[in-house]
Amino acid sequence: MVFWNIFFNPNHNNKKSNQKLNIEKVLLIKNFSQNNKIINIYLSINNEVNLYDLEKLCDAVGWVRRPLKKVKTALENSFLIISIFCYINNKKKLIGFARATSDNSFNATIWDVVIHPDFQGLGLGKVLMNQIIKQLRLYDISTITLFADPQVIKFYRHLGFLIDPDGVKGMFWYPL
Amino acid sequence: MVFWNIFFNPNHNNKKSNQKLNIEKVLLIKNFSQNNKIINIYLSINNEVNLYDLEKLCDAVGWVRRPLKKVKTALENSFLIISIFCYINNKKKLIGFARATSDNSFNATIWDVVIHPDFQGLGLGKVLMNQIIKQLRLYDISTITLFADPQVIKFYRHLGFLIDPDGVKGMFWYPL
Repeated sequence: MVFWNIFFNPNHNNKKSNQKLNIEKVLLIKNFSQNNKIINIYLSINNEVNLYDLEKLCDAVGWVRRPLKKVKTALENSFLIISIFCYINNKKKLIGFARATSDNSFNATIWDVVIHPDFQGLGLGKVLMNQIIKQLRLYDISTITLFADPQVIKFYRHLGFLIDPDGVKGMFWYPL
Repeated sequence: MVFWNIFFNPNHNNKKSNQKLNIEKVLLIKNFSQNNKIINIYLSINNEVNLYDLEKLCDAVGWVRRPLKKVKTALENSFLIISIFCYINNKKKLIGFARATSDNSFNATIWDVVIHPDFQGLGLGKVLMNQIIKQLRLYDISTITLFADPQVIKFYRHLGFLIDPDGVKGMFWYPL
């Protein structure tokens, strides 16, 4: 198993606000063995994600189903989308996903971080998150936020995320 | 002093993802007396905000100055911008501001909520926040989030915002 470094053009630092980096496919893990099959695992940035593939991935981790039309709108209006995938029997399989909303300038918020259960424990979540941070930093975004369920707080802490710094509290409003 | 109700066309519920409501001017408080002057206070939605006016307002509450170019990008890429203003000696004065990033579908995050110190205590902050919630709900956005400094947590609680519901924690990543 080999983790490949992902290099980007330093000119991306000077990107205009509406110009988005798009990377179709970067090899992440070469010759990974799963169920007696040797597969390669890839990462892509701001590339189209099939809505049904995403639904399947979210089903696999037991998330509540969401209307596909709303998911489509959410993806269209996300600042950054990272997906991780492989090919099994020549069929593309989505195995990791995360997205971020942002003002493209100061702040970003990460949503819907998910790794398929069959591929958890390989460090893919860490690669996914580090890639998100790297991409947001290319735009000089300095406040990267997320809302963590209790069972993943430790994971995000290891990546350098802080809880309630200087007493700042994440707050939620939900419709009744 | 009269607070006016703001009514919107129910068709806004069917808005397309890239179509934004734009309201130039709604009378909020009529005949408000300040420094022996009678003024009217207005609210506007997704209308252009002068960057220097915004800087002046942020200066008034002691916020750290931010590069205007970055502020411009942030406004351009905000999903919702609410501003409150009045006219003093025929000159428009920005006295309240808030904005939100969003995926236009499920989630929104509110940033930069500010009311000019001379106009605090009138309930304008509450009007501003309720208007943000109302606007986001028109798009059926159900998770409305923000990050509150310790001194304003009580204010947001009164508006129905919850801290750490079900143990979900707001987390931050900052560059070292």
